[in-house]
Amino acid sequence: MLLLQKAMVLGLRPVCRLRLTPSRLCIRACCTDDSFQPQHPSLVSSGNNYSARGWGLLGTLLGFGAVLAYHDRSCKAAQKSPRIYTREEVSSHRTPETGIWVTLGCEVFDVTEFVDLHPGGPSKLMLAAGGPLEPFWALYAVHSQSHVREILAQYKIGELSPEDKAPPTLETSDPYADDPPRHPALQVNSQRPFNAEPPPELLTESYITPTPLFFTRNHLPVPNVDPDTYRLHVAGPPGTKSLSLSLDDLCQFPKHEITVTLQCAGNRRSEMNQVKTVKGLEWRTGAISTARWAGARLCDVLAQAGHHLCETEAHVCFEGLDSDSTGSVYGASIPLTRAMDPEAEVLLAYEMNGEPLPRDHGFPVRVVVPGVVGARHVKWLGKISVESEESCSHWQRRDYKGFSPSVDWDTVDFDSAPSIQELPVQSAITEPRDGEMVESGEVTVKGYAWSGGGRAVIRVDVSLDGGLTWQAAELDGEEQCPRKAWAWRLWQLQVPIPPGQKELDIVCKAVDDSYNVQPDTVAPIWNLRGVLSNAWHHVHVCVTP
Amino acid sequence: MLLLQKAMVLGLRPVCRLRLTPSRLCIRACCTDDSFQPQHPSLVSSGNNYSARGWGLLGTLLGFGAVLAYHDRSCKAAQKSPRIYTREEVSSHRTPETGIWVTLGCEVFDVTEFVDLHPGGPSKLMLAAGGPLEPFWALYAVHSQSHVREILAQYKIGELSPEDKAPPTLETSDPYADDPPRHPALQVNSQRPFNAEPPPELLTESYITPTPLFFTRNHLPVPNVDPDTYRLHVAGPPGTKSLSLSLDDLCQFPKHEITVTLQCAGNRRSEMNQVKTVKGLEWRTGAISTARWAGARLCDVLAQAGHHLCETEAHVCFEGLDSDSTGSVYGASIPLTRAMDPEAEVLLAYEMNGEPLPRDHGFPVRVVVPGVVGARHVKWLGKISVESEESCSHWQRRDYKGFSPSVDWDTVDFDSAPSIQELPVQSAITEPRDGEMVESGEVTVKGYAWSGGGRAVIRVDVSLDGGLTWQAAELDGEEQCPRKAWAWRLWQLQVPIPPGQKELDIVCKAVDDSYNVQPDTVAPIWNLRGVLSNAWHHVHVCVTP
Repeated sequence: MLLLQKAMVLGLRPVCRLRLTPSRLCIRACCTDDSFQPQHPSLVSSGNNYSARGWGLLGTLLGFGAVLAYHDRSCKAAQKSPRIYTREEVSSHRTPETGIWVTLGCEVFDVTEFVDLHPGGPSKLMLAAGGPLEPFWALYAVHSQSHVREILAQYKIGELSPEDKAPPTLETSDPYADDPPRHPALQVNSQRPFNAEPPPELLTESYITPTPLFFTRNHLPVPNVDPDTYRLHVAGPPGTKSLSLSLDDLCQFPKHEITVTLQCAGNRRSEMNQVKTVKGLEWRTGAISTARWAGARLCDVLAQAGHHLCETEAHVCFEGLDSDSTGSVYGASIPLTRAMDPEAEVLLAYEMNGEPLPRDHGFPVRVVVPGVVGARHVKWLGKISVESEESCSHWQRRDYKGFSPSVDWDTVDFDSAPSIQELPVQSAITEPRDGEMVESGEVTVKGYAWSGGGRAVIRVDVSLDGGLTWQAAELDGEEQCPRKAWAWRLWQLQVPIPPGQKELDIVCKAVDDSYNVQPDTVAPIWNLRGVLSNAWHHVHVCVTP
Repeated sequence: MLLLQKAMVLGLRPVCRLRLTPSRLCIRACCTDDSFQPQHPSLVSSGNNYSARGWGLLGTLLGFGAVLAYHDRSCKAAQKSPRIYTREEVSSHRTPETGIWVTLGCEVFDVTEFVDLHPGGPSKLMLAAGGPLEPFWALYAVHSQSHVREILAQYKIGELSPEDKAPPTLETSDPYADDPPRHPALQVNSQRPFNAEPPPELLTESYITPTPLFFTRNHLPVPNVDPDTYRLHVAGPPGTKSLSLSLDDLCQFPKHEITVTLQCAGNRRSEMNQVKTVKGLEWRTGAISTARWAGARLCDVLAQAGHHLCETEAHVCFEGLDSDSTGSVYGASIPLTRAMDPEAEVLLAYEMNGEPLPRDHGFPVRVVVPGVVGARHVKWLGKISVESEESCSHWQRRDYKGFSPSVDWDTVDFDSAPSIQELPVQSAITEPRDGEMVESGEVTVKGYAWSGGGRAVIRVDVSLDGGLTWQAAELDGEEQCPRKAWAWRLWQLQVPIPPGQKELDIVCKAVDDSYNVQPDTVAPIWNLRGVLSNAWHHVHVCVTP
């Protein structure tokens, strides 16, 4: 706030760089509206329950300050005659050199000079550079105020050409052509199948990840399931009849609701790739997200189908409705002991953040296995059966397993390692970003920490000197039930920068309630598939003098 | 075996150094006789169920070979007239320089020349140097054969003086004077209270640790409990009557038997001490042992007392019968959820390896909490109650907690950290020993690995080059139930030494089934009490050319 007031006094010259971290401005929100369509923008707030929290007043104050500040400035762009631009032209303006353009509805704006004045921080506005503002404004409700629109109006330079207002037509020969639209802020690691993660600075903006920003890990095209004809097949024990459950049938089971963090086994694979090439998508720190899930408990459904815990080893196998061109479907399994344990809270979820699941996250029904690797949370769930062996799926038997660093593709024996279920303790820094400049004095370090198996994160240590000295960070977010800490803890630490320091090697490491810690370095946990990458996370920044 | 045959052919010159690892000779045994008294030796095998396993024949063969080999050798010692020695004189002969003497009954032997020929390896015999053989022969039944006695007879040099045959009298003013006798192989870290660990080369000799070698962690003098008048007090819920259970009463509950590894939170503290001084006993790698425990399940006893799982947080508090001079007793607690979970298998144990508990391990009843730090396994159990808070004991509230390396005794806030319950993944090398010489060609590396919370060890990686390259070791020992892997895995790896290598920095690290790993180095997990020391374990050895 002090910095903002100072900027206002200084008359907000474009050279004045506002380094406002989101935590200082406290602009937080989240969206539960999964029906978002970039082509049909709506500025109406989705009225969700998580975002309100009284930020409106603060947002108004900030906005009012901004209006006062910008009122007298000359707006060259607005004085020019409106022109017609294509989306392609707009998308080529994404840098300070080319100019930074954005669209809202059919209007085009050159916000180059506003970027550094953006109350949410320049990096947040830059996420929309070259494209529409709606996906971001839909997430952060503070924008739904008339004075924000007034500020923007001053930067208008033209309008979109009429043909660019219609959504693109589907290429029907492409198996991925029917995939749903996605949020433009997602950093795409693979388009087909779609795999994408939220940018770090948005990831820890809110405890519950806004649904459109939740990381997406698809192995196949997204099926388009008709909820009216959808049936979940639950095989009974030998000699009994299977269940065939409609969505309504599933909703008849007691509704169970929990907050669960999902993490892909490949999260932070990019760091392993830097040690030695691995096979897999180049996930950075964003293959992890948190949502509020609701649905029927798997143990209730299995019990209704006639299943009980048995003395011998058994597994609950799941099949998705997503398939490749040969009809082969995604599959995975979890041990029956976990599935039948009411305390393990395994869900057949039909709601995510209070809304039906979005298509990318398994509409109409997905499995949620708290504390367990994302690969077992089978989406678009079609079939459940109880077997004496694990799922025969490629993803259960020939993937998602950890090996010694000495094992390569010539020597690997996938049968020699157990399938990944619970994940090890993990943490990462989301602010500042690697390579960023930070001002001398003090730095705010932010990030997330999580552990598998319901083990709570009890401490996060942060170092500015590559791990020589450490300080414990402040843990935000909800305290959780012992043994059922299914969700992450966000954390932050404001820490003085030693005077004269020109660079910082910022490191974080977390400890869970079994006092497991993260390994110091990546190489000794390197494995050929690049999974389980949970070494200390490093971020290198330079300090402005 | 090949090496032994070769030694026999060579006529077993004293210069011939037999480097027989125990695994090659397969001499394994274990003792369940906890009534062992060094002053009253008995050579009768204790006839336990674990040791037999057909080693008798192999032992006989080995012994026969040894008899053949030694039959013709000149035995200078035997030709001398027997002399009378004091125990003190014997105990001053413990090195090759002074000569290596041992006793059996009232006879004294100079085994200096035999040490290198000992079929179990020189280091095992050296454990008895300067003292009686009985404690070791009682553990390793292969010695209970007449030809072994014949070999030994050749080394007789005299007898003990009559006054040295009687046990020492007790000093009654010493609160520790009534402590039980202990096995001389234990490496003592503190005599009063008694704290001691088995030497590494015996620790992994057998999957079940021989009872007399089980590490001992006492906080106070050992109480001398009369089993006939012993009563366990179990407080009931408010408004109900307490139970007062005799040992017989406890035996009326269903008897439950499990193999569980116990580890002290301070295991491997000595390595943390090398980074920066910590407060605590200087445990090396031996504050961990495995036994077969039997007793009543805590959940059954609590249920009989009228306790149920409740929605609010609750803890089961234990009090021992061991006390200091002010009457203050040892105490600790575990969460009620664990105590009431039949799958957690928490025991009120009255048997260890098939016999009543020895006094040092809690006679007549101790708590065994599988997967949890040793400090909660309260010995000489006197009282159980269910409370809304953890035990108020010093050892629950002001000890056995982990902190950031930055926390010192001026800044520590014990309330800020959770008490240690489940322990993190751990492993250590037991052979070769640090500083040992190994022969070029191949080295056998042996050790143990364990993880808390029932998480199974799935892999142990071994490096000869300080952690640059790794190979997976072979896991021995029993496969365990998923989620209930309460006991360790022993492991070994025979690995070629790169030609020309003069030194080896041997390292091990383990992975558990949540894919948690050990941290690379000690300093970042350093904490002021020196607990939770589970970094990679290093052993430096030199290679003979």
